[in-house]
Amino acid sequence: MPRLAYLGPEGTFTEEALRTLAPDAERLPCANVSAALDAARQGEADGAVVPLENSLEGGITTTLDELAWGRQLLIVAELLLPVEFSLLVRPGTRMRDIKRVFTHPAAITQCRGFTARELPEAVVVAAPSTAAAAQEVALPGSPYDAAIAARIAGDNYGLVELVANVGDRSDTVTRFVRVARPGPLPAPTGADRTSLVAFLSDDHPGALLEMLTEFSVRGVNLTRIESRPTGDGIGRYFFHFDLEGHVSDARVGEAVSGLHRVSSEVRFLGSYPRADGLTPQVKRGTSDSDFAEAASWLARIRAGQV
Amino acid sequence: MPRLAYLGPEGTFTEEALRTLAPDAERLPCANVSAALDAARQGEADGAVVPLENSLEGGITTTLDELAWGRQLLIVAELLLPVEFSLLVRPGTRMRDIKRVFTHPAAITQCRGFTARELPEAVVVAAPSTAAAAQEVALPGSPYDAAIAARIAGDNYGLVELVANVGDRSDTVTRFVRVARPGPLPAPTGADRTSLVAFLSDDHPGALLEMLTEFSVRGVNLTRIESRPTGDGIGRYFFHFDLEGHVSDARVGEAVSGLHRVSSEVRFLGSYPRADGLTPQVKRGTSDSDFAEAASWLARIRAGQV
Amino acid sequence: MPRLAYLGPEGTFTEEALRTLAPDAERLPCANVSAALDAARQGEADGAVVPLENSLEGGITTTLDELAWGRQLLIVAELLLPVEFSLLVRPGTRMRDIKRVFTHPAAITQCRGFTARELPEAVVVAAPSTAAAAQEVALPGSPYDAAIAARIAGDNYGLVELVANVGDRSDTVTRFVRVARPGPLPAPTGADRTSLVAFLSDDHPGALLEMLTEFSVRGVNLTRIESRPTGDGIGRYFFHFDLEGHVSDARVGEAVSGLHRVSSEVRFLGSYPRADGLTPQVKRGTSDSDFAEAASWLARIRAGQV
Amino acid sequence: MPRLAYLGPEGTFTEEALRTLAPDAERLPCANVSAALDAARQGEADGAVVPLENSLEGGITTTLDELAWGRQLLIVAELLLPVEFSLLVRPGTRMRDIKRVFTHPAAITQCRGFTARELPEAVVVAAPSTAAAAQEVALPGSPYDAAIAARIAGDNYGLVELVANVGDRSDTVTRFVRVARPGPLPAPTGADRTSLVAFLSDDHPGALLEMLTEFSVRGVNLTRIESRPTGDGIGRYFFHFDLEGHVSDARVGEAVSGLHRVSSEVRFLGSYPRADGLTPQVKRGTSDSDFAEAASWLARIRAGQV
Repeated sequence: MPRLAYLGPEGTFTEEALRTLAPDAERLPCANVSAALDAARQGEADGAVVPLENSLEGGITTTLDELAWGRQLLIVAELLLPVEFSLLVRPGTRMRDIKRVFTHPAAITQCRGFTARELPEAVVVAAPSTAAAAQEVALPGSPYDAAIAARIAGDNYGLVELVANVGDRSDTVTRFVRVARPGPLPAPTGADRTSLVAFLSDDHPGALLEMLTEFSVRGVNLTRIESRPTGDGIGRYFFHFDLEGHVSDARVGEAVSGLHRVSSEVRFLGSYPRADGLTPQVKRGTSDSDFAEAASWLARIRAGQV
Repeated sequence: MPRLAYLGPEGTFTEEALRTLAPDAERLPCANVSAALDAARQGEADGAVVPLENSLEGGITTTLDELAWGRQLLIVAELLLPVEFSLLVRPGTRMRDIKRVFTHPAAITQCRGFTARELPEAVVVAAPSTAAAAQEVALPGSPYDAAIAARIAGDNYGLVELVANVGDRSDTVTRFVRVARPGPLPAPTGADRTSLVAFLSDDHPGALLEMLTEFSVRGVNLTRIESRPTGDGIGRYFFHFDLEGHVSDARVGEAVSGLHRVSSEVRFLGSYPRADGLTPQVKRGTSDSDFAEAASWLARIRAGQV
Repeated sequence: MPRLAYLGPEGTFTEEALRTLAPDAERLPCANVSAALDAARQGEADGAVVPLENSLEGGITTTLDELAWGRQLLIVAELLLPVEFSLLVRPGTRMRDIKRVFTHPAAITQCRGFTARELPEAVVVAAPSTAAAAQEVALPGSPYDAAIAARIAGDNYGLVELVANVGDRSDTVTRFVRVARPGPLPAPTGADRTSLVAFLSDDHPGALLEMLTEFSVRGVNLTRIESRPTGDGIGRYFFHFDLEGHVSDARVGEAVSGLHRVSSEVRFLGSYPRADGLTPQVKRGTSDSDFAEAASWLARIRAGQV
Repeated sequence: MPRLAYLGPEGTFTEEALRTLAPDAERLPCANVSAALDAARQGEADGAVVPLENSLEGGITTTLDELAWGRQLLIVAELLLPVEFSLLVRPGTRMRDIKRVFTHPAAITQCRGFTARELPEAVVVAAPSTAAAAQEVALPGSPYDAAIAARIAGDNYGLVELVANVGDRSDTVTRFVRVARPGPLPAPTGADRTSLVAFLSDDHPGALLEMLTEFSVRGVNLTRIESRPTGDGIGRYFFHFDLEGHVSDARVGEAVSGLHRVSSEVRFLGSYPRADGLTPQVKRGTSDSDFAEAASWLARIRAGQV
């Protein structure tokens, strides 16, 4: 039974993702994404489940930066989870009693319409996680009257759901990943994704164009690109890329090798089955057999056997 | 005397930026970036000053998204400001008394080394802004013992600086912009920047490559690219671009027109003097006079005067 | 009634092309392509008809170079003409009498199968044109026993057709163009072609890639590319391009302007109706109305009217 | 002592090239380029020397097409030879006696200035080769009064040089190649060239751009590109490419493999020392050691050893 760290406390959306990805795992809640990843790095856990991006808010920057900079971990699975927010209160609290709301900054943004309309007088305060907000609200003497969090967090901490689905959009999805210490990659399934991080070799104009060309010339499609600052001053970036295909695919292997050659650093973050099960369209001349045939041809011409 | 809204309360880094950008302006502090921009939109203020990106944390997503989606505003000036964090307490508080620290999430990240080393037992809680954290800590009966914020915030709210420069890096810089309602653009200075937002016409592979080619083929250099989710599901993005040059430059005008033609939407966010004063390297064949000469030539050949 | 110079003497394929392109024209036969073009340049004729390329032999290098280097002329029409070769002899000559065959070098190549199979002992000698070969064979005392030329040349010079269709392929096509001194261009028809010549600004690697990108980024398709030496040493080239569309089309105009800006020289050779009548596929965002709309948008954003 | 076929008869520029490339070889003159190449193909000779391109006239189309379409041969060496034309006559002939000049069509073009100026009344007739012209002029009763050819041809056939250097330019250079039946390639020297022929996979717009990108993305520079018609109708081409580097170089190998994958056919024509001895500039990330390091890195990440 694997032991998996996650962004806790109990009741977070991340816990829900972990239960879906690994129902039988032992769960180790951690105070934040960094702590969960550190638990996996240091062997306290066999891996970790953390949010990677949200369809409304974008990349979870802590996760992106931890995967790019800290001791290396590999993504081994992913999950897309719809995110539904509830307004949770201590039993007996009514709408008109709510003066202070506590929730995660992402939820502040995603529920802005509801709070402006239904709680125009309330102050909304940022919490470290939605579940931590629920936990805090549940404390006797809490300065907060309500939390916005997953319903499960209410169940865990003894709050009641005063309003369901308070998010401004009903189709918000968060992408969670399971990471592990480096080891054998998940086998290719034909519907895989590869994640990596690349640093520009220098900041010459066109460097990003060059990196994208390394992919396009081998027919490798990007499904995500996200820029992040390197921390070395305004205007210096590195990039997170998600690609269609598995690094064991010939076209993906040659593309990431090319990227490795022309970038100052490429960090491989894993190849793993896609949550959506989509199989990539393989462009003419870029299948594994096309690459194998071309390699044979090259060997022949190098030997003068034309 | 212009009246400018900004991310308040008094004592934020944004106030410092505003004082530098417009020393004589009347200052209107707002609870958050959205409120500051709305004040500018609705005429309560003549403009606003907000943070756009941070060299450590990346784009300020609220600002990026507000500029992309809300009623349109134009950037008219920018400022790069070094950011220095102080540990601020009520008079008499000692290090060993600090059990709960309140600060903005960006500062939590940027001061993680200090808090882990010097305050290993303390809980660090997220606040809406660093100045709001200082304001809260200053209240009698506050559950928080210290704030991490700008020194000026301590001065404003009666806190004392217990430790200066608690950030993990001493070279963190934040880029602030002054925005205004649409109107005549700042005149070109020869060292200008142009900001815009572009939405992919569709999600075909290579669409980003196409957008970048619209710039590179006209010799227009990018100084920033930042992807943001459209909110319509995982894997759908739009892009913030910062370009060298002014939209009145011929090469910039043709490039953004080209982008406009091939994108589903381009939103122009302004052309304004660069804070760093750098003048762009203009590639052969892309100066204004090259464009003017080519236009004359085209008119001649269209008339058969070859 | 226009007077048109052409590659003579009477009986060439070029005469046939001229009769089709301009049935009512007065015909001025010239000794070679250069002389025909010079007649047009100097006003002895109102224009000229010359071969431009052949589906088997490629570009007619004399024509390509004359159009690129000499005093400028514009292509105003084109014609595709199937080319059929006949073996022409003086009355009474039999196959076994043929020891020496006279014809144009292109015909030597295109009829190699026939001559090797049917006239293995005969010597095949190069003539300035197929009609000149027929003319020569018709002379009493000619050292040549047969000519390979168009049947019409036999009729003109009193030769008889001993074998028809002696070309190795039956689908050979030659493209002829009518040129004129510079003047108003033929009006766009929706199915037009534009021809031009471009010299690399320098020989840096990737210069050709850059030129092609000027077309592709505006959705302009090439129908022909042909490299020619500049005469300044091995490895220095200029290029003939044929494009889909008329230079009055916005996308074509911007593309050739871009080419003009980045090349050391671009010579416009004309826009004229395509012989095959094919209308181009106009890529999203590159129609005239797309360009007009983008120009209006650019004018608005430059005025700050966003 | 190798036996090498060449474009004869004795006295051609090709013989001069052969003598330079292989001083000790036995020389087998052939009537034309096709015959010389066939002698090499069929084993009558160990190889052949033929002209490939001329700095004034461009590619020698017969050679280009023979190498592209016939049974395969490999280029094993190249030579750049200045070409100087002489006006050759039978002893006793004076300028004013010259009514008919015989020479190769390329020489007709290259000496047009001289013949127009000095022999305005003379007819200039096309010969299969310059040496054949000299041979013919030397025959008693020849209808021709002069040949334009290499001085050596005059020596061979008993003609005298009436005027030296009658070419319009003094810097004309012809590139000759030595070809052999397939076998081990010449070893890399660090200053090599690779020749190949590629057919577009289909005629979609942008296919040539794609082919060039296969080279540029691996930092492989082109030194020559030449389009040739496939013979299947106007507008259908294949391409001759000369590249910097040897196919045993990693970057060249990967580039031509990539071209092979995306083209309908690539024919390798050889890797051999450059006549000019220039060593290529190897772009960052594309040296053999860069490729080897990238391959090791790829093997490691595929094994999960990150």
